[in-house]
Amino acid sequence: MEKRWSVLEVLRHSRHDWLNKIQLIKGNLALNKVERVNEIIEEIVRDMQHESKLTNLKADRFAELLLTYNWKARNVTVSYEVLGDGGDLSAHDEELTKWCCALFNMLEQQADMNRENHLDVSIETADGEVRLFFDYCGTIKDANELAAWLERHQPESSIRFDHFSIHNDEMTVLINIHL
Amino acid sequence: MEKRWSVLEVLRHSRHDWLNKIQLIKGNLALNKVERVNEIIEEIVRDMQHESKLTNLKADRFAELLLTYNWKARNVTVSYEVLGDGGDLSAHDEELTKWCCALFNMLEQQADMNRENHLDVSIETADGEVRLFFDYCGTIKDANELAAWLERHQPESSIRFDHFSIHNDEMTVLINIHL
Repeated sequence: MEKRWSVLEVLRHSRHDWLNKIQLIKGNLALNKVERVNEIIEEIVRDMQHESKLTNLKADRFAELLLTYNWKARNVTVSYEVLGDGGDLSAHDEELTKWCCALFNMLEQQADMNRENHLDVSIETADGEVRLFFDYCGTIKDANELAAWLERHQPESSIRFDHFSIHNDEMTVLINIHL
Repeated sequence: MEKRWSVLEVLRHSRHDWLNKIQLIKGNLALNKVERVNEIIEEIVRDMQHESKLTNLKADRFAELLLTYNWKARNVTVSYEVLGDGGDLSAHDEELTKWCCALFNMLEQQADMNRENHLDVSIETADGEVRLFFDYCGTIKDANELAAWLERHQPESSIRFDHFSIHNDEMTVLINIHL
């Protein structure tokens, strides 16, 4: 699942993403929607702050997974946000990445490629703890299989499984890491 | 001289470069200089077309050298443009990169770090040939040493040395590659 990206590939994807943003600014400017342009710029700056905070968690493989996930053709798109005052996740990077890769793989199998499927990952640091909240909205082909998978794949050691819930087209999972 | 950049490092530099552009747009928008914003956007789109054309030359190491050069603290800043209908430089990538690295190293030694020193690389493809024009404006501490170096380091095999000239604070070199 994890691919090694070359510098040129990273730059190509980054360029593509940014040109989309620039086109959005350009289009709204052409319609004289200056207020909307300002909003878009604020959104871009906010997104970049999340990207920067994600990188600062020192979990490089985990950060790379989230930052590059949408660059390949997938059934599920992934977004993320990083809240709180930060922390050092480096000791948990490998385990967390492995578990997330497995979860993402499972969701790719559950998702119907003809529909929109989205996973939002919310990472919140506070009081020496990191809470990771996974909120998936999309097709769940087999809820029993997904539930059984989650029961079987509870993360170990320092990563604590808080709860999961599956309801119609939504799955939520909360895990905690004590830093 | 050549460093391996990680995905996160590439994204960090790319993010930094793009946020500068976004701030420039934001600043001009705040001053209601919509015309200037449109110019900046045109410049960005043009730069990205050059970046895309550089990547399409299939000389990955050479492209990476130019695209990442300014990410480290240097005495010399490097810019580039890619003109013409493109071509496949893959067979010459290693030799070209090696020679350019050596030239850039030499210029770093010639440049006074307390002044602005700039190298522009113009890459033009036409009629089965690539012309690379190097235009350096900046300090030349020892013109004789630089001239002797250029005489000694003329590229070999498929890369043909056309001419070089050193004049006060400027050096120009033209090389050709027959595809």
